[in-house]
Amino acid sequence: MNELRKDYLLDRWVIIAKDRGQRPDEFAKKHVDEKRADSVCFFCPGSELSTPPEIARVEEGGRWVIRVFPNKFSATSCEYKDYGRGMFLRKSAYGKHEVIVETPDHVKRLGDLTDSHIKKVLDIYINRISENKKDPRIKYVLLFKNEGDEAGTSLVHSHSQLISLGIVPPAIMEEVRAAGRYKKDSGRCAYCDIWKKESCGERRIWEDKQVAAFAPYASRFPFEAWVMPKRHVTTPEDMDEKEKRSFAKALMKLIRRLDSSLNYPPYNFYFHISPRGGDLHFHAVICPRIARWAGFELGSGIIINTMPPEVAAEHYRSGL
Amino acid sequence: MNELRKDYLLDRWVIIAKDRGQRPDEFAKKHVDEKRADSVCFFCPGSELSTPPEIARVEEGGRWVIRVFPNKFSATSCEYKDYGRGMFLRKSAYGKHEVIVETPDHVKRLGDLTDSHIKKVLDIYINRISENKKDPRIKYVLLFKNEGDEAGTSLVHSHSQLISLGIVPPAIMEEVRAAGRYKKDSGRCAYCDIWKKESCGERRIWEDKQVAAFAPYASRFPFEAWVMPKRHVTTPEDMDEKEKRSFAKALMKLIRRLDSSLNYPPYNFYFHISPRGGDLHFHAVICPRIARWAGFELGSGIIINTMPPEVAAEHYRSGL
Repeated sequence: MNELRKDYLLDRWVIIAKDRGQRPDEFAKKHVDEKRADSVCFFCPGSELSTPPEIARVEEGGRWVIRVFPNKFSATSCEYKDYGRGMFLRKSAYGKHEVIVETPDHVKRLGDLTDSHIKKVLDIYINRISENKKDPRIKYVLLFKNEGDEAGTSLVHSHSQLISLGIVPPAIMEEVRAAGRYKKDSGRCAYCDIWKKESCGERRIWEDKQVAAFAPYASRFPFEAWVMPKRHVTTPEDMDEKEKRSFAKALMKLIRRLDSSLNYPPYNFYFHISPRGGDLHFHAVICPRIARWAGFELGSGIIINTMPPEVAAEHYRSGL
Repeated sequence: MNELRKDYLLDRWVIIAKDRGQRPDEFAKKHVDEKRADSVCFFCPGSELSTPPEIARVEEGGRWVIRVFPNKFSATSCEYKDYGRGMFLRKSAYGKHEVIVETPDHVKRLGDLTDSHIKKVLDIYINRISENKKDPRIKYVLLFKNEGDEAGTSLVHSHSQLISLGIVPPAIMEEVRAAGRYKKDSGRCAYCDIWKKESCGERRIWEDKQVAAFAPYASRFPFEAWVMPKRHVTTPEDMDEKEKRSFAKALMKLIRRLDSSLNYPPYNFYFHISPRGGDLHFHAVICPRIARWAGFELGSGIIINTMPPEVAAEHYRSGL
């Protein structure tokens, strides 16, 4: 039976269209987009002078292995301005838009990198989040990755991005408000409770002492997965070294499982951290982009997902 | 300067990334997906027995020209059930999922049909909305169209769809609440006022005595356009014949302009009608699917749009 499910906390509904009964392997990408050796890739070693001035780098043996610089086609603005009124509110999109090139190797995907390299990538994510927060006019920092055409990548060389903004985005405010209401009613963190409830159920994917991964009850994407530290931390900077290693490990386990079982599907992931001074439980969300949102999704706000999270979790578990 | 803009009413933000400065023709689809004469198309004349039992048809000269039947891969359920609790709310996805085949001609797009045919298509949309509303358990009826791969079409033969549901979707509730607040403060309909403000400005696209079309201030999609009757009607059934003809004409003017100037881009449109007993001003939204939502959009809820609505409106106007 096709089922309407509500998110744990948010007023966000999905239709889990079980009746279509697709098997997990029917979601596999039909072909792999080969990561071509483009004639010119500005993210490759040798093109350093073609990017905007470098912000940070990680070196090994005298050569960079991770590199950060401003996005040449920035979505943000360096001006800080607030204007417009009534029905026509606007502000300058004040903030920073950074690119984090995760490897010098043009053809490697994130999941192909070694665990120790991935840990360095996570450290750089955390460093950039932390650095961007220092500007008091910045209200939020969003770290995200686009992998594959359908996930919005324009350049194939593996990279993540960071956008910092002068407002707290609506998607974050919704979570902050909903978790706030939950805390007021119960005295507890909603996300800590979500894991308590999911840890013994059919949507659990993986855990160790530090970190939990599961397919959320009202998954919007086929094979959507959430990864979060078990301890109540509001931002990844607050994880200790052991937690960071576990977090990187969990994220990579899921991505490698997607890559190997669904033939390198396109995906996004993003970090939801707490706004400054808030209490939101830090969590990462992996969104495989295998299905398209169409007129129904745009017009209703309800997402049709033909892959029940219980089946998705079983698919992850069976290959970890 | 890249700019954050808030929707007229909703807590919905976009970044209008003007700095990328793309010209309208840079958004043109690179190639046209030819509407192939697939070996078997279940929407073509001759395949009537392969679809679920017909719900309605329009005939001309003894042959159908428009045909309605249930979606074989329904997202809804005929069961009516409410269960789950706490963090795990769910209901059966009670409702109907219908397909409206708009022409017997396999290769024609909606914009290729004659004005008198389009008027009949609109009449059938309205008839199906009205019939679905008769079930008191149905709380909302969403009419939408997916044209082109990137807009989520699985079958190329021109068709629209209708999904009726036992809940009012969040996207509608948001508009109802925001318009309700506006009415309480001002005594006026927000959408009537939006047109009043847009009618003399640079985002105006087209109007006649009955109907208005414009590019909304906080457009989420390149070339997004809204079409609505000027008179305050809450549902398309309440339009008179003249209004219906104008509405069909406006919708087609925009779609034909997209088709001819951007090389048949993929698009969705949907109708936002008022829930039963409500007062929401009926409007249709056209969403060209030329850009992809990536990790930033999913993680923040803020949409980056590189085509300012002022430029989009000028592009529409210059070809009407």
